[in-house]
Amino acid sequence: MPGPANTTMPPRIVIQHPTPLVDCGRYPSKATVGRTVEVGADIFRDGHEVLRAVVRWQGPGADSWEESPLRAVDAEVKGVRWEGAFPVDRPGRWTWTVDAWADDLASWRVEVERKVAAGQTDLGGELSEGALLLAAAADRARTAGARADADALGAAATTTGDASAPDRARVAAALGADAVAASDRHPDRSRVARLDPVVEVDVDPVRAAFGSWYELFPRSWGGFDGVTAQLPALAELGFDVVYLPPVHPIGVTNRKGRNNRTEAGPDDPGSPWAVGGAEGGHTALHPDLGDEAAFDRMVAEARRLDLDIALDFAIQCSADHPWLTEHPEWFQRRPDGTLKYAENPPKKYQDIYNVDFDCDDWQGLWEALRDVVLHWVDRGIRVFRVDNPHTKPVPFWEWLIHTVRAEHPDVVFLAEAFTHRAMMRTLAKAGFNQSYTYFTWKHSRWELTEYLGELAHGEERHYFRPNMFVNTPDILTAELAEGGPATFVSRLVLAATLSPSYGIYSGYEHFERTPVVPGSEEYLDSEKYEAKERALDGPLLPLVGRLNHIRRSEPALQVLEGLTFLDTENDAIIAYAKQHGSSTVITAVSLDPDHVQEGVVVVPAELGLPPSFTATDLLSEQSWTWRLGRNYVRLVPFDAPAHVLRVDVA
Amino acid sequence: MPGPANTTMPPRIVIQHPTPLVDCGRYPSKATVGRTVEVGADIFRDGHEVLRAVVRWQGPGADSWEESPLRAVDAEVKGVRWEGAFPVDRPGRWTWTVDAWADDLASWRVEVERKVAAGQTDLGGELSEGALLLAAAADRARTAGARADADALGAAATTTGDASAPDRARVAAALGADAVAASDRHPDRSRVARLDPVVEVDVDPVRAAFGSWYELFPRSWGGFDGVTAQLPALAELGFDVVYLPPVHPIGVTNRKGRNNRTEAGPDDPGSPWAVGGAEGGHTALHPDLGDEAAFDRMVAEARRLDLDIALDFAIQCSADHPWLTEHPEWFQRRPDGTLKYAENPPKKYQDIYNVDFDCDDWQGLWEALRDVVLHWVDRGIRVFRVDNPHTKPVPFWEWLIHTVRAEHPDVVFLAEAFTHRAMMRTLAKAGFNQSYTYFTWKHSRWELTEYLGELAHGEERHYFRPNMFVNTPDILTAELAEGGPATFVSRLVLAATLSPSYGIYSGYEHFERTPVVPGSEEYLDSEKYEAKERALDGPLLPLVGRLNHIRRSEPALQVLEGLTFLDTENDAIIAYAKQHGSSTVITAVSLDPDHVQEGVVVVPAELGLPPSFTATDLLSEQSWTWRLGRNYVRLVPFDAPAHVLRVDVA
Repeated sequence: MPGPANTTMPPRIVIQHPTPLVDCGRYPSKATVGRTVEVGADIFRDGHEVLRAVVRWQGPGADSWEESPLRAVDAEVKGVRWEGAFPVDRPGRWTWTVDAWADDLASWRVEVERKVAAGQTDLGGELSEGALLLAAAADRARTAGARADADALGAAATTTGDASAPDRARVAAALGADAVAASDRHPDRSRVARLDPVVEVDVDPVRAAFGSWYELFPRSWGGFDGVTAQLPALAELGFDVVYLPPVHPIGVTNRKGRNNRTEAGPDDPGSPWAVGGAEGGHTALHPDLGDEAAFDRMVAEARRLDLDIALDFAIQCSADHPWLTEHPEWFQRRPDGTLKYAENPPKKYQDIYNVDFDCDDWQGLWEALRDVVLHWVDRGIRVFRVDNPHTKPVPFWEWLIHTVRAEHPDVVFLAEAFTHRAMMRTLAKAGFNQSYTYFTWKHSRWELTEYLGELAHGEERHYFRPNMFVNTPDILTAELAEGGPATFVSRLVLAATLSPSYGIYSGYEHFERTPVVPGSEEYLDSEKYEAKERALDGPLLPLVGRLNHIRRSEPALQVLEGLTFLDTENDAIIAYAKQHGSSTVITAVSLDPDHVQEGVVVVPAELGLPPSFTATDLLSEQSWTWRLGRNYVRLVPFDAPAHVLRVDVA
Repeated sequence: MPGPANTTMPPRIVIQHPTPLVDCGRYPSKATVGRTVEVGADIFRDGHEVLRAVVRWQGPGADSWEESPLRAVDAEVKGVRWEGAFPVDRPGRWTWTVDAWADDLASWRVEVERKVAAGQTDLGGELSEGALLLAAAADRARTAGARADADALGAAATTTGDASAPDRARVAAALGADAVAASDRHPDRSRVARLDPVVEVDVDPVRAAFGSWYELFPRSWGGFDGVTAQLPALAELGFDVVYLPPVHPIGVTNRKGRNNRTEAGPDDPGSPWAVGGAEGGHTALHPDLGDEAAFDRMVAEARRLDLDIALDFAIQCSADHPWLTEHPEWFQRRPDGTLKYAENPPKKYQDIYNVDFDCDDWQGLWEALRDVVLHWVDRGIRVFRVDNPHTKPVPFWEWLIHTVRAEHPDVVFLAEAFTHRAMMRTLAKAGFNQSYTYFTWKHSRWELTEYLGELAHGEERHYFRPNMFVNTPDILTAELAEGGPATFVSRLVLAATLSPSYGIYSGYEHFERTPVVPGSEEYLDSEKYEAKERALDGPLLPLVGRLNHIRRSEPALQVLEGLTFLDTENDAIIAYAKQHGSSTVITAVSLDPDHVQEGVVVVPAELGLPPSFTATDLLSEQSWTWRLGRNYVRLVPFDAPAHVLRVDVA
């Protein structure tokens, strides 16, 4: 407890409730290169002194602090809440804090102004006090080498302290604009209160915050060379990330057959997630996909196109993974010596073994897994989609991601965790830059409004970045299977306009929607267990391309925070505005695949738009004059199920 | 970042979001002797292991930990949230934490049960694993000296591990109730995750949480002996605390006259808050009130009656306070050497000087002020009402209260801060056990519902304890002045039934309500500046006494948390239920001093009451049968403006 035992008095200024602050500072918040970090804090003290405050920040590797002013934003409660911002220009771990101090000269000015306003005349004592404060300010200016300020303040001090001059002249000298401006440039910060400890922010590359993803199995596209050949077209479609399921050798022992059969046929290629075979483990390439050079050509072509190739980091091992013989100590065995394959009773995953994070050589295991990631980082990979991170220890992820990003802060990790909210949030806090979401299972207007509201406006906005896939090889929702192409279109527009990061798994553009059995989320003849003949010719691709380019041209679609849901007077139509800077996009989407739906989009005054404005549908290129209040919309399944309206203010 | 550099693996179990936790643990939460501390935390890990958790706590001065189980309360999200409680039996600073661990044997049982349920038969590997886990549990039981448990577990281990026995018998032995119960008594806590750092709780005496206060100026009651003579009657009225404005010598220099005139007449006694005179300062008694012995008699009589005498701790000094000559360094002077009296321009308080907390000898000042408090603690005072704490440094209060309570944890400090919310909350967090509130200015049903909802259910419930005065010597609200006796009655019932701590300043029971000028909150002929002839004969006192005794008999009125506002279908009637344990009180109060008001009290199912119940008005002693849903009420200004209904469940 600070008290008289201290040599200096504990600061009278209280600085508390800094934001963003994740779990009391246990985890950093997240920010994005090229944007600003908006910060706030409660700052106040006893009495009536005028306070000043700054945010001070330090980028990764910097050895000095930069600062900018904070301003009080709620004057009606004595300006307790202060806010400010700082720019972040490179990825990595940044830190910030707050300094605050009482401005004795400004406080003195307020006191004198109030007394003058009240007609008080006996100001001799006050003026002699002011002269001292001004002289001290002049000294500070002089020390700082600001001669003009020092002269102005010195002159003001002399006049203010001149007992032979009339009070009116002395007050005027002290309160003059020049003296005020000069003194504000040379504050007395000898008694400063500082927010302690400093707050951390992880600044990520833009790719972590904004991107359009396309998932494809390279074995269905002619391996690495086939993928390379498609990259220009994928770039043309506006994709930013091409995500490949595991590209490593696949085990043969207990290999799964087509449609997840326990017996594989002689030509069945097995699941890519059964990582490891005679050819190698997590750092090897499946020979059928191409050699090292082909892989490198693919990565190089992607870089040329400003695309990222995302690899899958799936820790499990097939029975034929080299680690089972090289590091048997990393796998759990029964007392009878048999290995335990993965299972979630009554489900069995006979083709894979999980590593044992509780093994005695956990350090060796952690380091080996880190080396896998670094191997691919060295090969030019900057994005990893992590398979089932919620079944591995959270502290392992925190260490792994921190360790990799300490050297390579531009690396992005996407968590494929579909589990309870606390774990999804904690993985994001522990370091994952992006996360899969519950979006696929949010269908109704109410469900989408609630869920997106939480993501955009809840506490988790500071660290949890959604990546909304419309489908995955594991997730064919009943909504898609039953709703058909019209639902495919609506869900695509929703994902692409709601979330700065979204993705589709190839097949979506062909409206693939036959479940393996009715009600299952698994596809019939799933690509997980067999190779397909894929081509970039799905009928939905033109709309995909248009949406991706709209996303690039409209800053409002590149951030999540500026999301406002709008009333539609029809639960079959969902509408929302997104805003960022001067960019506003209003989207209305029909949730009904079967009927034409009419309704309104109610534009509220809170959006700050003028009474009327031009709304241009970036899908149909039609324009209308819209107004604050109710605007009629009519949405037609499949053909015109959505408006994506750019707001143009005259 | 914990990682392979650690010798032990960081715990896989995540423990986060403990509650109550005030400002990330920067301040303790508050609790009350004789009640329990309800705690919670998120506890989970990767995978499907069965988790166990306990809360561990330590009272002040204890050198070992006690513990009790936590239980998962939201099974639908995998039981992420765990809750529990621990009892606190003495005042002071307590600490608590959480331990959690995976129960390998219970996890194994769940796995085997699911496999058996799925008809799986090849359980040899599982059973050999179970036998080892049971044998380990037997070893723990044996080490703990629990021979019966050790024998039961050993037998189960033998049968489970007997490869010659049928699987069914082996499974039955492992899952048998005896083995389960025995193993649950001997958990394997070798790999425990612990919440770190520990969380602090300040446990206060009941007086801090529940009490009825009466404020009187002893000079209007015949000094200490006069007060002593009234104490039995005040106790009879059900008061718990008798609060006296400052009892110290009053300055003569610049003494204030009647009605706050700057010139005092020769017989004007001055304001008691102008502390200090020739006779002494903050540790002296005003000679007109009686001598040291009279003071001691008063305190002794109060103790006999289980009453507390609350003194006023008002740090400011009159011009005649000994400290001005003994410690001139503690006061701020202008450059011309003149002292600065207290002012808040354009208001001037010429009769008092504030100490200068920024002075060089701040340590000496802090210690002297602490010694003032300790002086009165030594004289038997356990309750201090602190004047204007928001104009003194927060760190001073935190140190002072902590220091005093470290030796005297039964001392209670009430903050008289009427300022912005952040400061009021921070003073409470810094240590004040009770706080004055905005209650006096909350008049409408909506205002009261919002404000009390915040106090009872907001984050501040963990540390901010309201003391709702209906009036003070500084606060005669327009509502009282204009509403007259009917409003006095309603406001009294509101304060006494809404807040576990409430108070009245003498005069209230006489309906005193003439402002010094229309619209002012100052009384005409305020007792602050003159002595009155007071007697305990106000017409409102019988109701006061009845309310105080109802408060003592109904536990629901002694806590704030169990507050639920009820619909009334009439904004002139406010109604609320309070619940604690098996005690339920429903109160309905008319806010209209002029007209009879009719309405309903809607009893919602959430209160957990039966479909019908007996509601006995503890004011009128009438009883009715009430029901869930709408119950008619008719309230008459002044004569029957409220029901305070005890709920009796057959």
